[in-house]
Amino acid sequence: MPRVFKVTDIEQEEKEIKKDYFDRHTPVVICADEVTKGEKFLVKVRVGTDYRHPDDFNHFINFVQLWNRETLLAEARFLPGTFGNQPANPEVDFYIVAPQVSMNLTAMCLCTQHGLWSSEAKAVKVV
Amino acid sequence: MPRVFKVTDIEQEEKEIKKDYFDRHTPVVICADEVTKGEKFLVKVRVGTDYRHPDDFNHFINFVQLWNRETLLAEARFLPGTFGNQPANPEVDFYIVAPQVSMNLTAMCLCTQHGLWSSEAKAVKVV
Amino acid sequence: MPRVFKVTDIEQEEKEIKKDYFDRHTPVVICADEVTKGEKFLVKVRVGTDYRHPDDFNHFINFVQLWNRETLLAEARFLPGTFGNQPANPEVDFYIVAPQVSMNLTAMCLCTQHGLWSSEAKAVKVV
Amino acid sequence: MPRVFKVTDIEQEEKEIKKDYFDRHTPVVICADEVTKGEKFLVKVRVGTDYRHPDDFNHFINFVQLWNRETLLAEARFLPGTFGNQPANPEVDFYIVAPQVSMNLTAMCLCTQHGLWSSEAKAVKVV
Repeated sequence: MPRVFKVTDIEQEEKEIKKDYFDRHTPVVICADEVTKGEKFLVKVRVGTDYRHPDDFNHFINFVQLWNRETLLAEARFLPGTFGNQPANPEVDFYIVAPQVSMNLTAMCLCTQHGLWSSEAKAVKVV
Repeated sequence: MPRVFKVTDIEQEEKEIKKDYFDRHTPVVICADEVTKGEKFLVKVRVGTDYRHPDDFNHFINFVQLWNRETLLAEARFLPGTFGNQPANPEVDFYIVAPQVSMNLTAMCLCTQHGLWSSEAKAVKVV
Repeated sequence: MPRVFKVTDIEQEEKEIKKDYFDRHTPVVICADEVTKGEKFLVKVRVGTDYRHPDDFNHFINFVQLWNRETLLAEARFLPGTFGNQPANPEVDFYIVAPQVSMNLTAMCLCTQHGLWSSEAKAVKVV
Repeated sequence: MPRVFKVTDIEQEEKEIKKDYFDRHTPVVICADEVTKGEKFLVKVRVGTDYRHPDDFNHFINFVQLWNRETLLAEARFLPGTFGNQPANPEVDFYIVAPQVSMNLTAMCLCTQHGLWSSEAKAVKVV
């Protein structure tokens, strides 16, 4: 399998030296901590926090995926140029329906030059 | 090519008889009428307005796409169950960057039982 | 909806003048004329016949789709560079299972600069 | 990130007890051991070897991907029913162009009930 990059797996020293590189490739899951069974809620997936990623023809974010544990919920695909061919934080808002049990959401994204990246997990309590 | 369904192509009488059928399959592009060159803006694509579409394993909305004229900008894919296996208006918010010239946005969506559907066009002035 | 280009809709004169342009964007469905109910068979989708399409970062074939009437059967996605960044006839072989009734297959493909293109229909008798 | 299942990571005893389960979810990369720089060659990705996977509406193989190290080359997506709603070994033939340096190909696939699976790596010498 392709290596999957994840910031929490990387040594502290390397992380500080290449802070911008890690930041701009790391997807983040943003949503409520607690949601209601059977109700729709918003989950934003954004790539990068303090640094923006290029949107060049030969270097762009091709997709972001939203997973609940081993289940893929949704995926968004972008073409080069969607973000105006300028550095950006690719983002997408999905609206999903809370199941019966608590969720453990993660996002993944693909950079066409630097491979597959994973977010940290986001626990979502279902009440 | 597969037939593409579009409400504006359908006769008034048929539209009234099968209002719920057309409504629940028709994607809608929702965004500002006017945006600023090079600035990010939100485009919501939502399937259905007054009626909800099933999210059954054998009958679900598989994808929505956002186009600017002949250019595909972004696509979101869903798995059956993303919307809790209950009727829903699948929706997704894309964040795109306004180009130099005005846009003519359309959305398309695929129902696994009833094929490919198109929205009406949404003109977006770029200033 | 985005305009869908299809060679059979284009005037003879224009077709001759821009023969290479139409050829290199037109997907073709290649498979047996007759297949057996419930049996797997191969369907090749190839883009272009006499002319090759660029595989440049800013100009490539992003996807090909295989449809049976209004039903999407399968889709293949490519990244720029899959074909070595040199002109090619993108192709993919799908293996599908013949249903109970005869099929009417079409392919579609997306060029990132020139939009969505459709093949001619290919009738497949199921016996 | 979602757990990625890979047969070579699994204990011998567990593998024997659940041989059919592992086999039917494991993608396999099938191609020549040696290819020529700049030449097109066929890469088959097949899911399962001795056991077939269901093609049920609530349990199917949603996609297979072909990777060269950290680079995604191509992806094929299936809808439930592509394989006739009967057990099958989903397969697809990609045709890619050999780059300047040797390749290390892997395939991944997604089962809608049992998550993301990886093949073993297939080394391909480029001459």
